[in-house]
Amino acid sequence: MTTQQLTQQIKKKNSFLCIGLDVDLNKIPKHLLKDEDPIFAFNKAIIDATHHLCVAYKPNTAFYEAYGLKGWKALEKTIMYLNVKYPEIFTIADAKRGDIGNTSTMYAKAFFEDLAFDSVTVAPYMGKDSIEPFLAFENKHTIMLALTSNEGAFDFQTKMVAGKELYKQVLETSKSWKNSENLMYVVGATKAEYLADIRNIIPDSFLLVPGIGAQGGNLQDVCKYGMNDSVGLLINSSRGVIYASQNEDFAEVAAEKARELQEQMEIILSK
Amino acid sequence: MTTQQLTQQIKKKNSFLCIGLDVDLNKIPKHLLKDEDPIFAFNKAIIDATHHLCVAYKPNTAFYEAYGLKGWKALEKTIMYLNVKYPEIFTIADAKRGDIGNTSTMYAKAFFEDLAFDSVTVAPYMGKDSIEPFLAFENKHTIMLALTSNEGAFDFQTKMVAGKELYKQVLETSKSWKNSENLMYVVGATKAEYLADIRNIIPDSFLLVPGIGAQGGNLQDVCKYGMNDSVGLLINSSRGVIYASQNEDFAEVAAEKARELQEQMEIILSK
Repeated sequence: MTTQQLTQQIKKKNSFLCIGLDVDLNKIPKHLLKDEDPIFAFNKAIIDATHHLCVAYKPNTAFYEAYGLKGWKALEKTIMYLNVKYPEIFTIADAKRGDIGNTSTMYAKAFFEDLAFDSVTVAPYMGKDSIEPFLAFENKHTIMLALTSNEGAFDFQTKMVAGKELYKQVLETSKSWKNSENLMYVVGATKAEYLADIRNIIPDSFLLVPGIGAQGGNLQDVCKYGMNDSVGLLINSSRGVIYASQNEDFAEVAAEKARELQEQMEIILSK
Repeated sequence: MTTQQLTQQIKKKNSFLCIGLDVDLNKIPKHLLKDEDPIFAFNKAIIDATHHLCVAYKPNTAFYEAYGLKGWKALEKTIMYLNVKYPEIFTIADAKRGDIGNTSTMYAKAFFEDLAFDSVTVAPYMGKDSIEPFLAFENKHTIMLALTSNEGAFDFQTKMVAGKELYKQVLETSKSWKNSENLMYVVGATKAEYLADIRNIIPDSFLLVPGIGAQGGNLQDVCKYGMNDSVGLLINSSRGVIYASQNEDFAEVAAEKARELQEQMEIILSK
């Protein structure tokens, strides 16, 4: 998928919502546990109920790996279901990968080719040759951690490096990498006040913004400082949508929560 | 496994060799491709031929994920084979994971509980609350990237932060984290001259050192600057051992290459 197609979808749906599919078997409705594949059953119900309200889904691979083979199988089924039934949806493998060059190529193949995700999240610590193998894939997107939503972001990301914070160095340095037009960035909603500075460095890139809701980020602030002419934002909500109800009505309630966010986004987009 | 048990094994085998099981179906001997599970067949042959010459095996998860479900199954079979047949071996999931707290806990469960590895590699960019969930597991080890062996290490890791290089900040900061005694660190063999400074910061920790052989690192230099009283080093070789021959004699030749490294280590240990 191209970023133009993503922007078109945002404008059509009046939504830039991404729903995080972080499936924890301790949190899903109990009646689903009888299903042959409870993880996929949960995802399918959530997707069918919310696909018209959001533009992206983001399974975090940790939640699938934690269930071993059956988790990996559920991840495969989920991405296949999305690609076949809702091909307009932008898909994000939230994997935070990164390794030396030949190994990053293997990760890129795993997520872009084998699983056929549109994008994957990566960590920047190992630098250019750990990320460029991902960028080499045409019409695929590499979403690099810049400023994350957690408390530990202040341990290293905001430390001053040659006169500017590390996350700004990461943003600026990455612009010089080959095929850097395939980069997007993770910026936590809990750090909305940083977004104006970030937009000075990367005015055109899409930002994936986690941390709305459960983590305390504010949608209006994020949009005020982070939106660009092509919207340029994917706002993620995971727990706030998918676990809004743990009863049989879970998918319906998830759709209500997604609708609330979509309606706030529609107001912002109409301004 | 405790670090004391690891050190005992090193002294018993006169080896601190770790063999990287980075299985690429394009590089393994052709006759194995007829096997029902070529990845596991390759690993089993390598392990059976080399287990007495090394103290650790390190599958890099990228190479397994690239083959989807069958790759994940081969990884499960490999770690189970190691844990059942050679329980004295230290096992490393080279996964370079790291995420916000509740998600890192899922990764820790995946690698420490579901797959039962002794250790996992992690990336430090997201800070304390992304790593501490791993450190909470008793007698499990979290191997954090400090100074990596690739060229991209110079993009951020060696940049000056408050008067010292970022990787030194990472090392020092991590010492204050809860259960930091469960930390080990990745330091690339291609950066051997940095090891003296690193040992000043973390004198007692084990270091996992990739980059010997194919990547150009030198064993003698690494040991000169990096060894401590408990040895404190795991030197990894992947391609140099496992792909030394691509013929039917591959396991035998891998053992010869492992033997060469073990003999060099025995000389160093006897000094």
